[in-house]
Amino acid sequence: MEHTKGGFTMPGESGYEKLTLELAERWGADVVRDSDGTKLSDEIISAGYGVYSTICIIREHNEFAREHPECLQQSFLSTEPVAAEGGELKIDLIAGFFNQQFKVNDSPASRAYWQVWDRTEGRVLDAGEWSYADGVVTVKSPVPFHTYTASFLAYRLWEEINMYNHVTNSWTSEHLMPIDPRLPVAQEYLFNYLDGWCRDHPATTVVRFTSMFYNFVWIWGSHERNRTLFTDWGSYDFTVSEKALADFEREYGYALTAEDFINHGDLQVTHMPPTEHKRDYMEFTQRFVAGFGRKLVELVHSYGKKAYVFYDDSWVGVEPYGPHFKEFGFDGIIKCVFSGYEARLCAGVPAGVHELRLHPYLFPVGLGGAPTFMEGGDPTADARKYWVNVRRALLRAKIDRIGLGGYIHLLEGFPDFVDYIAEVSDEFRAIRSLHLDGAPYVLPMRVAVLHSWGALRPWTLSGHFHETYMHDLIHINEALSGLPVDVRFIDYNDAKSGALKDADVVICAGRAGSAWSGGAVWNDPELVAAVTEWVHSGGVFLGVGEPTATPEGWGYFKLRHILGIDRDTGARVCHGRYTFDVETVPGLIPDGAGVRGLSHLYLTDGETRVLAADPETGLPTVAAHRFGAGCGVYLSSFQFTPENTRMLLNLMLRAGGKELGQMWLTDSPAAECAWFPQSRSLVVINSSAEARTVGVATDNGRAEIELEPFGTVIKKI
Amino acid sequence: MEHTKGGFTMPGESGYEKLTLELAERWGADVVRDSDGTKLSDEIISAGYGVYSTICIIREHNEFAREHPECLQQSFLSTEPVAAEGGELKIDLIAGFFNQQFKVNDSPASRAYWQVWDRTEGRVLDAGEWSYADGVVTVKSPVPFHTYTASFLAYRLWEEINMYNHVTNSWTSEHLMPIDPRLPVAQEYLFNYLDGWCRDHPATTVVRFTSMFYNFVWIWGSHERNRTLFTDWGSYDFTVSEKALADFEREYGYALTAEDFINHGDLQVTHMPPTEHKRDYMEFTQRFVAGFGRKLVELVHSYGKKAYVFYDDSWVGVEPYGPHFKEFGFDGIIKCVFSGYEARLCAGVPAGVHELRLHPYLFPVGLGGAPTFMEGGDPTADARKYWVNVRRALLRAKIDRIGLGGYIHLLEGFPDFVDYIAEVSDEFRAIRSLHLDGAPYVLPMRVAVLHSWGALRPWTLSGHFHETYMHDLIHINEALSGLPVDVRFIDYNDAKSGALKDADVVICAGRAGSAWSGGAVWNDPELVAAVTEWVHSGGVFLGVGEPTATPEGWGYFKLRHILGIDRDTGARVCHGRYTFDVETVPGLIPDGAGVRGLSHLYLTDGETRVLAADPETGLPTVAAHRFGAGCGVYLSSFQFTPENTRMLLNLMLRAGGKELGQMWLTDSPAAECAWFPQSRSLVVINSSAEARTVGVATDNGRAEIELEPFGTVIKKI
Repeated sequence: MEHTKGGFTMPGESGYEKLTLELAERWGADVVRDSDGTKLSDEIISAGYGVYSTICIIREHNEFAREHPECLQQSFLSTEPVAAEGGELKIDLIAGFFNQQFKVNDSPASRAYWQVWDRTEGRVLDAGEWSYADGVVTVKSPVPFHTYTASFLAYRLWEEINMYNHVTNSWTSEHLMPIDPRLPVAQEYLFNYLDGWCRDHPATTVVRFTSMFYNFVWIWGSHERNRTLFTDWGSYDFTVSEKALADFEREYGYALTAEDFINHGDLQVTHMPPTEHKRDYMEFTQRFVAGFGRKLVELVHSYGKKAYVFYDDSWVGVEPYGPHFKEFGFDGIIKCVFSGYEARLCAGVPAGVHELRLHPYLFPVGLGGAPTFMEGGDPTADARKYWVNVRRALLRAKIDRIGLGGYIHLLEGFPDFVDYIAEVSDEFRAIRSLHLDGAPYVLPMRVAVLHSWGALRPWTLSGHFHETYMHDLIHINEALSGLPVDVRFIDYNDAKSGALKDADVVICAGRAGSAWSGGAVWNDPELVAAVTEWVHSGGVFLGVGEPTATPEGWGYFKLRHILGIDRDTGARVCHGRYTFDVETVPGLIPDGAGVRGLSHLYLTDGETRVLAADPETGLPTVAAHRFGAGCGVYLSSFQFTPENTRMLLNLMLRAGGKELGQMWLTDSPAAECAWFPQSRSLVVINSSAEARTVGVATDNGRAEIELEPFGTVIKKI
Repeated sequence: MEHTKGGFTMPGESGYEKLTLELAERWGADVVRDSDGTKLSDEIISAGYGVYSTICIIREHNEFAREHPECLQQSFLSTEPVAAEGGELKIDLIAGFFNQQFKVNDSPASRAYWQVWDRTEGRVLDAGEWSYADGVVTVKSPVPFHTYTASFLAYRLWEEINMYNHVTNSWTSEHLMPIDPRLPVAQEYLFNYLDGWCRDHPATTVVRFTSMFYNFVWIWGSHERNRTLFTDWGSYDFTVSEKALADFEREYGYALTAEDFINHGDLQVTHMPPTEHKRDYMEFTQRFVAGFGRKLVELVHSYGKKAYVFYDDSWVGVEPYGPHFKEFGFDGIIKCVFSGYEARLCAGVPAGVHELRLHPYLFPVGLGGAPTFMEGGDPTADARKYWVNVRRALLRAKIDRIGLGGYIHLLEGFPDFVDYIAEVSDEFRAIRSLHLDGAPYVLPMRVAVLHSWGALRPWTLSGHFHETYMHDLIHINEALSGLPVDVRFIDYNDAKSGALKDADVVICAGRAGSAWSGGAVWNDPELVAAVTEWVHSGGVFLGVGEPTATPEGWGYFKLRHILGIDRDTGARVCHGRYTFDVETVPGLIPDGAGVRGLSHLYLTDGETRVLAADPETGLPTVAAHRFGAGCGVYLSSFQFTPENTRMLLNLMLRAGGKELGQMWLTDSPAAECAWFPQSRSLVVINSSAEARTVGVATDNGRAEIELEPFGTVIKKI
């Protein structure tokens, strides 16, 4: 690959000026950045590169926080249920939580939102039935052997990313407290702080906001064997305060309660369908974040600097596909990536610059504390693994920049890593240049992924792949991220309002009741009829796991008439089952493809074709069922592998009545390709560790390409 | 074992008089019987034995059935949902069903009960919205792409046991039609028929009713790959008729609808909690069956004969622990057995004589069409397998008689079977004689199995072990059937009304929502508080699978505060999990014990002790949790094996604060024993194929017993 320059952001490090500049040359960098824990020296800053400076606006203000404790960020918390035995019941509010993270907010305004519940009866106690003193709620006359909980507001004493870094890296510095800009005094303070900061950083060309007020939610417990009580990138729990609740009530005409957040201990998990109250509160919060966020971005602009947002630690209110994202006026978005779907998420954001922060981070340890840039680590293998995931998505959508973060001095023992990043950066720029010439070819297939969040949260579920691997949909999204098909994300209102007409395939993948399979929304006759009609007129509905499942009504999968399969939740244990033979369709399911089985599946129609079955249980794992002019396709689960990815593509093609042997597809699942018609360039990538020769049918006959392990070839046709 | 006589019923067979009498001598028989397809000759009848004659009162009346087609038994059926496309929707009622079994009853009285449903909306159509002609329901203006079903009454043309025998044994005789005694004309006919039958069978000493009107439900479909649409021993579907429905409405003041039976296609499965309507209808039907049944029994008595009921083909209305069973006046009950729990079921019935019909049946083929008394069969091995299951229950409860059924001429090639049955019959009589001297010792432990059916349906779920093996509870019941503990079965009303005070251990075992784990009943605060208080004061609550699970409220297992463990249905995927080490308690879990894991389990308390975990997932399989003075014990599932049975006993002992090393227990799970204090006899049985020496702690020191494979030893202490 030709050595090129540009589109690369590299971490600089004071004291390692020579190394910084050498590597910048080597990697073709045009920007240097600081990182958490590093500084850029004047020598680096004045070397002619663009300069990114990171800022997490809501922390490093401990003095202000001490003066204004009411400006600390908060959260609703609930105790675990405790059984009354007879006589008074005392409930220690904070006992179950990490006391360095939380502190009860027992102000009168806060206490107005507290709730004490008889969870056995599902009843909120009247105010007269309980009292509070010194961190303890006392229920005067509980019903013996009912269980009780108390929900309360707590201040957060320790910003969670700082908490993570302290704990992971054994830091000993002062704990940073998170400021909530909801109160005017905090807004004014933060605005002035940023103003000063901009003044103090004249060389900074891009202010990289690491966080826009509310970071991911991470609730710690007091028990050493259960530190993490809850963690969710998309949760709004950490945005709450008396003022937010009062403002909300004024605006929406109804009050949110503690239970809207606590939700009988489940909290409002991103993986579950939102309530209407949650949707209102999200919209309310998004407007607030965008409103104050815009002021900060405008301030940055007034200094002639650009403002980028790092979309990872902070999701809430910054949803980059949300209705308010454009209001911020961000000039760019930076996304850290392990996976292809994250690259697609970044690429589609309405912002001028789309940049990926590659992994591994230049830290001694990586995910889960495993060694990276230290003895026992193999950062080149890590980088290759992630790059192989990301690269296939880069073939489908243009990304403008890539970069790294961390301490470059750690690279001294890892010359192969330096070489590999040089290779990657050239490969990245070569692919980018193809996109600049014109978009790649896609098959005539528009895939709509249907779930509760729809276009608000495309591609991702809630966090990285390794955090959400237990959900079928993230595997589907990862497979789709590199397939030559049009992909969009729609919600149920979209499906009822005409969005289906722009789709050839609809995918619904997830566990029953989840935001991904939809839950109770499938009791809506209008939705069921809309999808049914669309399939009947030729659409392909592809269900994975427990698609459209709800316990109400006839059967469990509400589109069982389309899928030709259903799952027994127990009531059909005495019902007979269609026997079947597994049908083999040549070329449809590649060697090595196969998905995990699911128990209790049964065919609802003798016409359902079983294309694969679980060897252990004999139950279907892949099935197809004609419905009118369309088709239902069912997968008991989905795991992202090259072979399964090709199987998914084949199933969608075949169910849509298309030939498997399309042009511009490789003849091997381990290799994929993209065809850029404007430049008549074919890019072929090898996702496997074996060298291989693959064929591609082109408009100029069959092309044969030799690929090195993990290799990329760009060939003019 | 000493050769003894009595308590044995053997099948006789015309043309094999010598063999019959030889075998009777060999096996110590005191009674001969006929079987389905065999006759007893005068030589056999006059040989001085008691004579059982089988009668299935509701079939073999085809001439009457042809004259009175309105007296055929019926069932509610529903078509599968079919999607409307636009314009009229035609629904063929019988197309999905076996047309030799069902025929639409389209009388006006019947049609008044029919329902046509928009299943997408969950709405019953008004009468004006559909019409009927020639077997087809037409919906005039369906909503496009909603699905519709029609529920209707159908006559049954073929009695199902006869249908089974025809199909299994390739019979070609006329199909027998089932008569419903609900109509007076049928009652009169059947009464007179039985009167004549009694007159014609002067040598018969016992009339053995194979059926009391309503046999198990077995609905066949038209699709050759899905013949059995539904089968349930305890279902009331086959008892319905226009008259039954009208009588019910008159008596209960409300009308049942088709949907009370169809239940959106699930029907009213015995494994699921009953609705209040179903409970009413069961009570209504039980009274009817007992009322007319009593007349028939009295008629039999008037001829100086005894009346026994064979409790297998016919469950419905004959529930032997139901409130009406005694009204029949049966002199005895006969239960065919594969398992220990069936022996316990039989032993506890309030009837004078308790008899077991052993397996295998003397037929060429046995279960599932496998060879028995033909080439490839090993009937002795089969008999031994079942006897080993049954024998351990016989140590715990007295059975009066055993016997066989079928064709004895088949035994000619199987002398080892004849020998084995001689052994078994002597063994049976030896055990029976110990019971006659006085009851066996039980540990000071009263176990109450808690489920929806409670004392109405103890021991069994719905049918034989091999039909219900997928339910944890049948494994638990089978384990309990041979354990030296007091066992009772209670329902939720019992639990709220003081029954808990007579229990040391309560067991709740089953899949969420089932009749066995309870379903929605666990939303009842009174029930939850009653069990919570009882455990708190010292009880042991042992949950298996998804005990007390309901989707409403806090957590899934409503007694999670007792069990210390719960299951995540998806909303807690972002919640942390207590880590744990598996604790080893010496002697608690025998070598070889272990149960299958269940996904998504998590500890709710750091104090929960994990006693075993799934090696694959690492999730708990056995856990215990102190609660007040009592304890919760959790098993992710239960499979009946000797080792798991001992584990169950050990867990109950230990959780109840008792020592594992109790007297009158063997030191090997594969061998069990019973202590009969009156006769100071210790019976030790070996359930394994290996000879072994086992020790038993007695009140006279340790006894050591040598056991042959599968052997029984009775030893005076």
